[in-house]
Order: sequence, then structure tokens, then C-alpha cells
Amino acid sequence: MSRSRDVPSLVAAAREGDPRSVARLISLVENGDPALPEVAAAMAPFAGRAQVVGLTGAPGVGKSTTTNELVRALRATRARVGVLAVDPSSPFTGGAILGDRIRMQDHSADRGVYIRSMSSRGQLGGLSAATPQAVRVLEGAGCDVILVETVGVGQAEVEIASLADTTLVLLAPGMGDAIQAVKAGVLEIADVFVINKADRPGADITYRDIQGMLALGERGPGDWRPQVTRAVAVKGEGLDDVVAAIAKHRDWLESSDNLRVRRERRAAAEVSAIALGSLRARMGDPSQGTTLTELAAKVAAGELDPYAAAGELLAGLT
Amino acid sequence: MSRSRDVPSLVAAAREGDPRSVARLISLVENGDPALPEVAAAMAPFAGRAQVVGLTGAPGVGKSTTTNELVRALRATRARVGVLAVDPSSPFTGGAILGDRIRMQDHSADRGVYIRSMSSRGQLGGLSAATPQAVRVLEGAGCDVILVETVGVGQAEVEIASLADTTLVLLAPGMGDAIQAVKAGVLEIADVFVINKADRPGADITYRDIQGMLALGERGPGDWRPQVTRAVAVKGEGLDDVVAAIAKHRDWLESSDNLRVRRERRAAAEVSAIALGSLRARMGDPSQGTTLTELAAKVAAGELDPYAAAGELLAGLT
Repeated sequence: MSRSRDVPSLVAAAREGDPRSVARLISLVENGDPALPEVAAAMAPFAGRAQVVGLTGAPGVGKSTTTNELVRALRATRARVGVLAVDPSSPFTGGAILGDRIRMQDHSADRGVYIRSMSSRGQLGGLSAATPQAVRVLEGAGCDVILVETVGVGQAEVEIASLADTTLVLLAPGMGDAIQAVKAGVLEIADVFVINKADRPGADITYRDIQGMLALGERGPGDWRPQVTRAVAVKGEGLDDVVAAIAKHRDWLESSDNLRVRRERRAAAEVSAIALGSLRARMGDPSQGTTLTELAAKVAAGELDPYAAAGELLAGLT
Repeated sequence: MSRSRDVPSLVAAAREGDPRSVARLISLVENGDPALPEVAAAMAPFAGRAQVVGLTGAPGVGKSTTTNELVRALRATRARVGVLAVDPSSPFTGGAILGDRIRMQDHSADRGVYIRSMSSRGQLGGLSAATPQAVRVLEGAGCDVILVETVGVGQAEVEIASLADTTLVLLAPGMGDAIQAVKAGVLEIADVFVINKADRPGADITYRDIQGMLALGERGPGDWRPQVTRAVAVKGEGLDDVVAAIAKHRDWLESSDNLRVRRERRAAAEVSAIALGSLRARMGDPSQGTTLTELAAKVAAGELDPYAAAGELLAGLT
């Protein structure tokens, strides 16, 4: 990082709500700056202050618009809101997501909102590595709710569920069979379903399909029953119901042991990602004796199998 | 694995081309069976026998049909062909990919073709962990060309490029702006572009767009210039051109140092993935002293930052 401002003064300014300091700290996190451990240490005491809300859905369901309107609805409850829009770096959708960010500038004059696009492109363990640290920065800056938005492709939505307190899954009528989506795994991660574009034909069918699937799920008396809400984000309709469902889920988390369990699981994923990242860096380091490169050459030549090579590599590290 | 047949006899039968033994060995690999290192050791000497061809593209471009017809065209050259259809476990597309496998049964009577669907669902490092081992099994079984097919979402196509000798990117007219796709990163990984559905309106525009983008790329005299081919897979047209482009790329790889470089890079990724997986397993193991769970609880409570926790975790392991 630039030497002009040190981490403690950036943290102090971020704690006061200075948006430029928050932005600088998130950049440090995103770039894997050497100051990252210092930022993490400074932010540690504020862990768990905010409700982290993951927001995912297939391309075309209206994620950007919904996020934008959800920010507006949350602001009406006087909550301070952070938004992390995470681009899971798909060559086929990446550009569009980032382009949509421009719409978010609606909130640019509001000091109670921080909005940030993050790209996980090229980073191993992308989302899981940088996002939790960025969440901590926003918690330190006093956010009450942090929305983490990502497009629902590949493993991104599973990752998002693992770092969120509350996961919203967006659907839209006419985007293919809702039951298919639900069967394929979304049912397990969604705390709140939002059927967007609910004024379109087929919205009632999607709603009934989801309710039907939920009715089939086995739940004990204290278990959370996923809420199903309807919205027309482009007209700003239905977002208050989404806000209410998010608050209801927070109340449930706090009244049960689930908040602690979810957050400890999240911290475990975070710690092991950092530890593995550090080992990965050491493996590639030629000063570590038997290098990965030498072993790889033997494997490629058929002289060594990859398991034996991995064993030699670890023996050299530990 | 079942005790009825041990690894050496399965390997011997697979070497003779017995399809059931090949299938059994790939299952061991896919399930992370304890016999996996033994399988890998047995297959190590056959590393690099086949040309590994990655095949990727957005949903809807006709990947299954193209793979199917490409197998037919390759068989006409008397090559033995293996197909690994890797499902990157997207809740939104997974079902369809597996469903399409049924079409592949066209080749079920042909002893020169092995076809296998693999799911990376839930596995950390999914594709990168099991696929290279499955490739080794197919190499051991005498395949000359191994097609690794995956849908182009998230990081899957980057992973596929990292494990293939030759990467095919499928496009189709009317699937959105080709230039967008190319800009967003596909240009860097494609060795051969296949414009499928080339009888549809807009195919010429897609072809010209890609050629235009390629003309802008900087290449030295010995560098590979990505080939652009056109096909109508559903009618079985144009696949011979694709086979020719694949062969041309193989010749280029062999005449340059690129084959060795690509394969050593691939082996390095494979070895480090295995090593990291083994460390990951040890981290979660409560018998290892200071456990991840304890550290995670402190991080969640704000008593420890995740970097300090990762440091403690590694100190306990090494």
C-alpha cells in the first residue's frame, strides 16, 4: 500500500464512516496487500456486528435491480448498508454484472451506503478468500446489513451461502422450471426466496411450485421455514416484504443457536482458506528445497505418480 | 473398493481395453477411494500418451451433440477415444448435462470409445482433483484422444484449459455477442474455435468477429494462431475440419516446446491440488492438537483475527 496513510489511521477514519478510507481498506483486501493481516487484526473486534445477506440467482432474474431497490428499502429502516457485488469471473457473464453497477450510483450521495464491486477473477478460492475480509471492513465501518451479491453459476451460490447469515435466492417466472432449480440444490441454501418480476405471467405458478417443494421438506418444530416473497423490483414493489423476511430470519438466528453455528463454520472456512493459501505460496517458492516444478517434470515424464510427488512436496514443507 | 478384484488385476484388464475395468478404475478415482494412490502409481508410466482435448462453451451452443459427432469423426481416423463429461455442479444446469449423456449411447457398442460422466459436485477443487486421474486411467487404457467436456460457466473453462493439451471453445450464432465472450477471456484459452449451428443466420458475423479479434492479437512467428472452424453438429457437418484443426494443434505442440511446458504446468497443478487436499484433511482432524474448530470459535467471537488463527493452525501442523 501507499505509505501516505498507515493502516491504523485508515481504520480510524473507516470507523468514523469515511467512505474513501473504507474503499482503500477493501482495495488492500482485494489485492492481497501485505498489510492484509494488519487490517484483519484491526477489524477483528467488530466481527459479527452486521447481518450478512447473500443474494444470488441465475443471470436475468434482475439481481442488480433487486439489490438496488433492497438497499433503498433497508435505508428506509435507517440501517447502514454495505453492498459487495462479487463477480465470479465467468467470461460469459462478467462484463454485464460490472456494467450494471453503474445503476447503483443512485445511492452515491448517501453516506449510509457503501457499494463495492469485487472481482474474484484468477484468484484461487476467489470468493472465499477476499470476501470475508471485505465484510469485516464493512462491519468495522458500522454497517448493519451487508448484501453480498453474486450471479448464480457454478459453485458461487454454495460459497455465498457459506459466508452469509441469511441467503436470498432470486427467481423469475419464465426463467425455466422453478422445480428443476429447487431440486438441483437451491432449496438447501435459500433462507428467503424472492420471486422477482412477479407481475409477469407464470409468477403464480413459480410461487406455488416453490411453496409445494417447501411443504415436502422435513423440518423440526424449531427449524426455519424458508420464506417466499414476491417483488417487482423494477417498480420498487415488494421490497418491504423482503426486508421483513430478512429481519424475521435474523430474529430466528438470534433466538436459536444457529447464528453462532453459522458464524463459526464461516470462520473455519476463512481460517483454513488463509492457511491453505499460505501453504500454496510456499509450495511454489523455489527456496523451499525440492520444488514443485522439479516434481511436476517427473510426473509429466511418467517417472513419478502425482500422489508420491505430493508426499515428497509435503515432506519438504513440514 | 470391493475386495473381489484388486487394483493390479483391474489395471491389467483396463490395459487390455476391458471397458468394465476402466469404468471401475474411474469410479475409484471419482470417489476418492483409498486405493487412488495405487491406481495413480500403476497408471503413471502411461502419462502423456493421449492428446487431451478440452471442450467448453456456454449452455445452448450444442456441446453434447458436437462431442458426439466429434467422437464419430475421430473414430473414422481409427483413433481410440475417451470422453469425460464433467458436470461443474451448477444447480441451474447440472441436470440437463447429465440428461444429454443418454444421446452418447450411440457409441455404446464401439469398443474403441469410453464415455464417462463425472460430477464435481461438493468436491473442493472438483475438476482439478479427479479429472487428471481419470485422464490417466484412459491413457492407460490406450486412448489416443481424450475429450474433456464441460459447460462454460464460472471457472470451469479456465480449469479445463489448464488440464488440456488443446482447448476447443464452442460458440453459436445468436448466443449473444461473440466479441463480448472473446473480450472477457475466452480468447486466451481457445486453441480452436468451433462455430456450431453454422447454418443459422448470424454465423458469418460470429466468424468474422472472431477472426477480427484474432487479427488484433500479438503473436510471434512460432506462436499458435487459434483456428476457427464451422460446424453443424446436428447434421454431422464440419467435424472433419475440427478433427484436422485438433491434429494441426498437436503437430504444433510436438514441434515446439509447448507440449512439455503445458504438461509440466498441468502436473504441477495436479500435485499441489493433491498436497493441499491432504493438508486440508489434516486441518479438520481433531487429533491434530489446536483444532480448526477452536480457532474458528475465537475468530467468530472477535477474539482472534483469521490471519493469526491461520498462523496458529499451521504452526500446529508443521
